[in-house]
Formats: sequence, C-alpha cells, structure tokens
Amino acid sequence: MILRMSSLFLRTLREDPADAEVPSHRLLVRAGYIRRAAPGIYTWLPLGLKVLRNVETIVREEMDAIGAQELTFPALLPREPYEATGRWTEYGPNLFRLTDRKGADYLLGPTHEEMFTLVVKDLYSSYKDLPLSIYQIQNKYRDEARPRAGVLRGREFVMKDSYSFDIDQDGLQASYDLHRQAYINIFNRLGFEYVIVKAMSGAMGGSASEEFLAIAENGEDTFVRSPGGYAANVEAVVVPQAAPVDASGVPAAEVVDTPDTPTIDTLVDALNAKHARADRPWTAADTLKNVLVMLVHPDGKREPLAIGVPGDRAIDEKRLGAQVEPAEVVPFEEADFAKNPALAKGYIGPGVLGKDNTSGIRYLLDPRIAEGSAWVTGADKTGFHVINLVYGRDFTADGTIQAAEVRDGDEAPDGSGPLSSARGIEMGHIFQLGKKYAEALDLKVLDQNGKLVTVTMGSYGVGVTRAVAAIAEGNHDEFGLVWPREIAPADVHLVATGKDAEVFEKAAAIAAELEARGLTVLYDDREKVSPGVKFKDAELIGVPTIAVVGKGLTDGVIEVKDRRSGERSNVPVADLVDHLLSVVRG
Amino acid sequence: MILRMSSLFLRTLREDPADAEVPSHRLLVRAGYIRRAAPGIYTWLPLGLKVLRNVETIVREEMDAIGAQELTFPALLPREPYEATGRWTEYGPNLFRLTDRKGADYLLGPTHEEMFTLVVKDLYSSYKDLPLSIYQIQNKYRDEARPRAGVLRGREFVMKDSYSFDIDQDGLQASYDLHRQAYINIFNRLGFEYVIVKAMSGAMGGSASEEFLAIAENGEDTFVRSPGGYAANVEAVVVPQAAPVDASGVPAAEVVDTPDTPTIDTLVDALNAKHARADRPWTAADTLKNVLVMLVHPDGKREPLAIGVPGDRAIDEKRLGAQVEPAEVVPFEEADFAKNPALAKGYIGPGVLGKDNTSGIRYLLDPRIAEGSAWVTGADKTGFHVINLVYGRDFTADGTIQAAEVRDGDEAPDGSGPLSSARGIEMGHIFQLGKKYAEALDLKVLDQNGKLVTVTMGSYGVGVTRAVAAIAEGNHDEFGLVWPREIAPADVHLVATGKDAEVFEKAAAIAAELEARGLTVLYDDREKVSPGVKFKDAELIGVPTIAVVGKGLTDGVIEVKDRRSGERSNVPVADLVDHLLSVVRG
Repeated sequence: MILRMSSLFLRTLREDPADAEVPSHRLLVRAGYIRRAAPGIYTWLPLGLKVLRNVETIVREEMDAIGAQELTFPALLPREPYEATGRWTEYGPNLFRLTDRKGADYLLGPTHEEMFTLVVKDLYSSYKDLPLSIYQIQNKYRDEARPRAGVLRGREFVMKDSYSFDIDQDGLQASYDLHRQAYINIFNRLGFEYVIVKAMSGAMGGSASEEFLAIAENGEDTFVRSPGGYAANVEAVVVPQAAPVDASGVPAAEVVDTPDTPTIDTLVDALNAKHARADRPWTAADTLKNVLVMLVHPDGKREPLAIGVPGDRAIDEKRLGAQVEPAEVVPFEEADFAKNPALAKGYIGPGVLGKDNTSGIRYLLDPRIAEGSAWVTGADKTGFHVINLVYGRDFTADGTIQAAEVRDGDEAPDGSGPLSSARGIEMGHIFQLGKKYAEALDLKVLDQNGKLVTVTMGSYGVGVTRAVAAIAEGNHDEFGLVWPREIAPADVHLVATGKDAEVFEKAAAIAAELEARGLTVLYDDREKVSPGVKFKDAELIGVPTIAVVGKGLTDGVIEVKDRRSGERSNVPVADLVDHLLSVVRG
Repeated sequence: MILRMSSLFLRTLREDPADAEVPSHRLLVRAGYIRRAAPGIYTWLPLGLKVLRNVETIVREEMDAIGAQELTFPALLPREPYEATGRWTEYGPNLFRLTDRKGADYLLGPTHEEMFTLVVKDLYSSYKDLPLSIYQIQNKYRDEARPRAGVLRGREFVMKDSYSFDIDQDGLQASYDLHRQAYINIFNRLGFEYVIVKAMSGAMGGSASEEFLAIAENGEDTFVRSPGGYAANVEAVVVPQAAPVDASGVPAAEVVDTPDTPTIDTLVDALNAKHARADRPWTAADTLKNVLVMLVHPDGKREPLAIGVPGDRAIDEKRLGAQVEPAEVVPFEEADFAKNPALAKGYIGPGVLGKDNTSGIRYLLDPRIAEGSAWVTGADKTGFHVINLVYGRDFTADGTIQAAEVRDGDEAPDGSGPLSSARGIEMGHIFQLGKKYAEALDLKVLDQNGKLVTVTMGSYGVGVTRAVAAIAEGNHDEFGLVWPREIAPADVHLVATGKDAEVFEKAAAIAAELEARGLTVLYDDREKVSPGVKFKDAELIGVPTIAVVGKGLTDGVIEVKDRRSGERSNVPVADLVDHLLSVVRG
C-alpha cells in the first residue's frame, strides 16, 4: 500500500494544541493522528486509525493464539443485567445512562461482565463445554470525571476484554496463566517498557489480580517495587499487621494539657516543651492521628469513617479510595462535626471512636499499630491529649485498613527489601473474578456427577486506545513520534525532495516496488513543499525508517535514516529495495 | 485457520426463535451467528462476527480502490454540530440522546454528516486539497419505532458511510460516479440480486440520489420498474403533471343531493342511481377525493394538510411521509374537525380548502388532476356533492404532491412502459448532498481565484450489518443458510463421522493441510455426536463446501458436497486438498 502525502487526509501542525499536557497527546494531535470531537472523545484520522488497528491486530493474534474466541457485544445495553449485579447503581456517575423512545433504561457498556456471563449461560450447560475463553475488541464508554491527556484517559475508547469460564479454581488458574502469558507477548510486541504488579480488583470483585503498567512519568498509577522482586500498584500494597509488643512496662494512660495543638507538629512541640520524656524527644511517630472522612455509597447513603494512623504518615487518598470502593470518599465537614458532639475537632481519640463507642463512628487502624504499643492521641476534649494509651489495653478498634501512604524506603510486605516508587499507565489488568457474576446471574453447569455448580470466571482487559497513547509516551523525542516497527502506520517513509522530475519518477518507482514487495509506504510526493518541511513532517510522524530521494541520486545513492537512532547511511539505488526490506523485516 | 466444533463457541438450535418472522432472522439465530441482547440490539457470536468482518472487508477494499480514505469518528457525539444543522430536532424520537455527568447533551450518531463536514473544515482550506473522499465503518444508532427481523432493522448496527468533498458540481458528479461503480462492485461481490433505483434524499437534503436494493420478498422497501429500464423506489416515483385539457364543453358546476355518501363507493352508487350521466356510468375515477391529515413538525407544531387525489387511487403513506419529512403524518381526528367548522366530514371539497380559503388549510393536488378536467367532489355541506367542478375554472389549489399510490400497470414517468412492483431491502444509498451541510457548518475553501467558495458534498452509505441479513434472505433453503463464498465464515466445512480413530486422524490431517494452504476450515471433530446431527448442522451453518470423512475412507474416497446445488462427488483422498483448493479459489 502507498499512502501519498499529496492526497492523504493529513495536516501536521507546527503548534502544540492548547489543551495538551502530555507528549503523547501533543504529538498525536500535531502529527495528524487524532482530533478531539468532545472532552475525552476523539476522531481517528487515517494515520491514527492504522496505528490503532495495528495494536488491535497484535492483541487479536495473541488472544487467538491461546484459543480465545472473538465475538462482539453491543455497546448499547439494557439495564436489567446490570441491575441484577448491582453495577447499574455502583458505577455511579461514571456510567452513561439513557432512555429509549419507550422509556426503557439503557447504558453504554463500561465493561461487559454481565453480557459475557449471560451469553455463556445461554449457550453452555455442561462441564464438558469448559474451559472457555471469549473476548471482544470494542468501544467502551465511561463518563470520566476528568478525561485527560488525549486518548490516554478518554470517555469513548477501544478495549479488548476477555473472560474465562472454568468449572473450578484449578481451571481458573490455568486460564489465568494462559492470559498472563498472552499479555506478556502482547506487551513485548507493543514495544514499551512495562512492569507486572499486584493489583486491587476494585469494583469488579474477585481475588488474584495483576496489572500490566507501562512505565511512564505521566502515568496516573503509582507502583512500588523492591530489589527482591516485589511489585505492586500502590493501592494493592498490603502492609502486614505489626506483631504484638509487650506493654507491661507502659505506665497508665494519662490525660495531659496540650492547648492549641490541633496538628501533629504543634502537638509534638507542646509535648517536648511541657511533657518531655526522659529517654528521647517525642516525634510524630509517637502519635496516633485520627482522621475522619465521609463515605458516600452508590445509593447516596453517607457513612462517617475514622482512620487511625501513626502521626508521621499521611492517608493516601487513592489507597483509601480503593479500599472503600464503590463508595466515594468526601471530606468530613463542619456540619458533620456539628452533628456529632462527641468529636472534639483536633483532639479526637479512640475514647469516642468505634461502632460501639460514644460517637458510633466505625474506627479502623493502620496495621502498623501493634497490639501493646503505646500512643499519644486526642483526649476527646479540646486542648487535651492522652499519653501512654496502649492499643488492646486502653482502646480497641473495629478493624484495620490499608489507607496510609506507602513511602520509598518502606520495607516490602514480603520482606524483599526497601520499596521504591515510580509511575505507570495501566495497560492491562488480569484477575480471577471468581463466582461473583456467575452467582448474580445464575450461571451454572452440570459437573461430572450431574450436579449443578456455579462457574468460576477470570477477567482480562487491555486498553487498546490507551496503548496507542502509552506507546507514544514511551516512544518520542523532541522532534516527534518514534513508532515501534509493528505499530507504525507505514514501514517506510519515502521522501522525494527538490523539483527535479527525475527524483519524483525514481521515488514513485521505488514506492511501487516496495508496495509490490508487501510494504506499506508513506510517500511524500508533494511537489511544492520544501525539503525542510518534509523532513520535519517525517520526524513528527515517526515512521521508523525514512528514505530520502534527492540530491544523492546524481551519485546513485539514496539516504536511509533510522528515525530512532538518527543514524544515516547512503545506499546505492540498485540495493535500496532489498536494503529496506531487510531493515523492515529485521 | 481451523475452527474446531468441539470447542467452538457455538450452539445450533433445532427450534425457531419465537420472535423471528423472516428466514434470515430465524436462520442466523438458529445457526448460532447472532443472539438478541435487547430489542433491535444483537450480539455477534464467533461465526457471525466472521461473516460481518467478511462483508466489512469487501466494502473496505472497494472503498480503498476508489481512493477513499478510512478514518473513524466517535459514536458518542456532542449536540452542538447537530444543533447547527437542525438535525438534533429533526431526527425526532429516532435519535438516542443522553446527558453526561456535567449536564452536557450528547447523541449516539445515526449518521455523521456533521462530523465529516467539520473534520474537513478543520484540516483543509484550498481547492487544491480536493477532491476528497473519506469513510468509516462504524456502529450507528437509531431508536427505530419498530426494530424488526433480527439485524435487518436494528437499533445498533454497523454502517459504512462515506462523504465526498468537491469544489463544484462536475467534481461532485465524478465522485458520485466513482462511488456508484464501487457500490456495483461491492454488491456484485456480496452475491445477492440487487437493483439500482432512483431514490428520495429524505431528511438528508440534496438532489440526485439512488438506492441499491436487494430484491427480497421480506424487504421493507417497494420499488417499481418498467420494461424500458426505469427503476425507482416507490417513494421516489415522480408522476408527471397531466397536460391541460379543454374544459369548454363542460357544463357549469352543479351541487347535487347525495345523502349518506361519505365514501367514494357510496357516492358512485348514488350518482349512478340519482344523477346518471348519459354517456357511461360514473366511476370512482370521476371523483376527486380530498383527504385530510395532520403533520407534526419536529418542533411539535401541528399543521393540517388536505390532499386531492382521483377517487380510485389511495394515498400511499410512505410516499406521503417521504414528501413531508421531517414532519410526521398523523390522523386528522374528530377534535381537529371540531376546530374547523368549515370542514363537512365526508363531503369536503375545494370550496373551503386552500391557504387563502375558508378553512385556511393547505391544499395539494395529485399531478394527475389536469387543468381543465372536471370532477365530482364534496360540496362542503353534509349530504351534498358538486359535479362538473373544473380545476382551474372552478377551483384552485396550493400546489401538487406525489402522495398517491403507484400501481402495477401505471405508465413509467419516463414513458418506458408499464410499471411493475417488487420488494427490496435498502442496502446502499448514494446521493448528491450538495451544499446543505457545508453551508450550515461553514465549510469553505479558497478557489483558483483566491475566493472563498462553499464545498459541495456527496453522501454514500452501505448497511454492513443489514447486508449480512440481506445476504441470508437471498441465500438459504429449507435446511439452512447457503453463504456466497466470499462471505462464508469458513471455506470448507470438514465433517468427521463415526467412531473410528482413523477417521478423526485423517480428518485432522486434512484440516491441518488445508489450513497450511491458507484456507479456513470449520472442522466438526465432535466425538459423541451422530453423523445425522453433524450433517444437519453443516446444512444449517451454510459453509459452501462440505467434505465428509467417513465410511468412504476404506475405499480411499471422501465425499465432497456443494451446499448450494446439493451435488456430491467422491474424491480420492490423495486429491482432496487440491480439489478443495480449486473449488474454493474457483
């Protein structure tokens, strides 16, 4: 195939689009791959569509290779199955909902768990039919609160989603392992740097879960890893419960006067000034900070929650959010304090917290709070704190929560060394969904003994649209995009320069020959465009190999440039086609 | 590729689905190609998706062959451009509308004229950029009042829509002709019988317009054709204005007493009984029937309309509907009569009709009403008619309308002989849209003289989803589907019968060899399924060539059956692969 720049529906832009924050967004718009149609909703221009299709093809090939079968569900879906699983409500404002002319409720599918489950229920009935893996590559819709960064987080986007169906956990594990390997193959072929991390399963339910993150400074996800090989999305880090300590030497709890100390810093200063301890100064780590938040459940119900963490550690909003999903976290406001007079703002302590305590507010502790450990914390009276308050002796809680920040240098939960953090883009997510959907929608099959058993499911997603952006994030330089070969919209960018008819004739002949040999050629045959502009466009567009037919022709050579390394070589005209074929096919 | 029936996500059904009225719907469901997800909304199972993709590929190849460039727009679209062209309102209840979390209005694209126009405005600015043809193959959404017949008329469906952009009418004509030829190529390859007919351009605006109809008794469209080559969708038949006749011998109009004659039949009987004419009996063709309807405009405004047609000819609702689009036609009700006392129900005549007449109701005549022709019609007084009422002498109207039925035997408008009618399925529509959208959205380019001129557009659609159903309508028998070769989900359906391990080994080897030679094989490798069930499934699924590995193997032959003709032949095992390749590749 030859794409002629003289007629290609493409205009490159010299200026960055005003709304573009990240390189992939900037470059995909400037190089003429995408155009914004509405917030988070994009049109794919011809070059962009080729790149998107190339990603789709890789995903499809690797899914087919593990025996997964492609089908396609509608994007416009009836409410009922989503009502049955609770997701009609749980999805909250992220779901695009609409009503048809008869008043029936519909949604635009954000993911298709319900539909996959129902179609298997429709067709299959026996353990002999399993295992089964089915998938689709299709438009998904999510009404993101903050669509951002072009197609990196859009509201209409292409996803591959697949589901496995097995009779038991061993089968599910095997299906999961197959998908995991397929994903490794996919992400290797997509050509960006990625990491596989432990993940939360979030609103989906289920247990074992891993994410494939493209490592990228502009990524929205933070992950941590250790020298010993631990890797997890920061939301998924499970800090182990601290072992009990001996509290026998701790004096009785004592309320102390600490006026004007509504913050940890002011408290530590006041303690050291007025209640100095003998062995060492007080530090923030000696204090137990009690943070109040309000949870808003999908049905609108509001529920206060108190979280106790060591005073030197902040609450991580994303970790907290992941723990309480599908509820949303909003601030605990003055009005909420007013409704609960047991709470002394700035001096709140375990003395009033807990379901069975004065406030009635659920109280969860960071797992670092060991049984037997002593703390300084609020005395539930303005201007007072209590010291030597021992967990298990002097106060209790309703449970623990993984909501405190994870810091560089923290020990990995598996003891494999100190954690360091980096940012990534979630490209794929695989997890063992288990029986949640099969139970909600009654997907059962007969087992070997003729007994009905609920099927167990795995769920596996790849962000196809997002992959284009993620690849662009990881493959560009100051001049433009640098596509990996399998993703590029063309194999060779052939540039004819100057005004010499002979140059254009030769270039056209080369393009035709490359096409005949099976390559896709982006051929810059524009006649009144300067070489400078053509070179700039070639750098911006990012086809991996650029061949320039120009002045060199008089010496019988054509310049071939590697877009990534910038390396140039002069290739004799007679050898060019074979040379390019060997470069492209590797 | 080998699709193994033992693991293929497919279950054929012996029973017709309860809601299926037409063969394509019945068979596509029974053979496991599609499943209903909601009214007019379908899931494509693996075999169905292959067929759908095959149609897409044919369409894509022929569009690419005329230099059209593929891109893809979102399905979820902002309101503003559709507001600018008036279609947000004009589309009425057929449009799926929704609101995002911020309260902004969106729609699910029914067609993308606005988006195509805007993207060209975004990228192009000069006559040098034209001509341009761009297209997409994409999900479309229409909230049909009566989704029917499976995927024949759905609410979510795949369409190819393309648009041409030219500087002038000559350019548009050339782009139109290119598309017309591409469509001929597409529909020839799709393998059904079709006809190209003149068409209305409907809500789209524009002028020259043709439809490609698949001839099918279950089609929703009626078309007429003449022996001399005239062919038109019945809505698009333009009956010429009858030439004036000499009225000089017609006596003066006379009101006659015709009690209890609210219908044409009762009127004709009464005339012949009480007011017999000398030369011949009165017939319905002597009467002028005035029909009242109510138009409901997209903005909700109601407008009464009176239509005068010869009494022997009915109003064709579809022809009328096409004339008044985007208004909808609803019955003129008792309450409407009550509001307009000038109307004597059953005896309405031109005496009160017309914008400038007593009723103030717009009055349009069938073009068969010639100037100078004399009629019997209502005298606007209950129980009375008027005879010898001459058009042009005794009454006038506000214009003409093409709303009367077209009948078999009517002369073709171009004089090419009597019309005969048949039914068809609209598969493609090409038309010269002109400047409607370019004007509404201000798409202008500089011409050769540096002056801004409005671009002229053509619009071209193919129903991809519908094509699958239309092909099935035209290609089935009592046993099941009979796919044209290029559309079929596989090249060969290979059936292994019996329990003999040797049979299965041989069949597996043949499947592998066919795959290696580039064919797609649907291989029935199910072990505990009877030959009868396998043969029935093969007939139902409809792959054009069926090869049966079974008893014949002991004699060294394999039975090859042509699904369409039913012809069978025994092919020596050694020749089988070459034989099948030659059958498949033709």
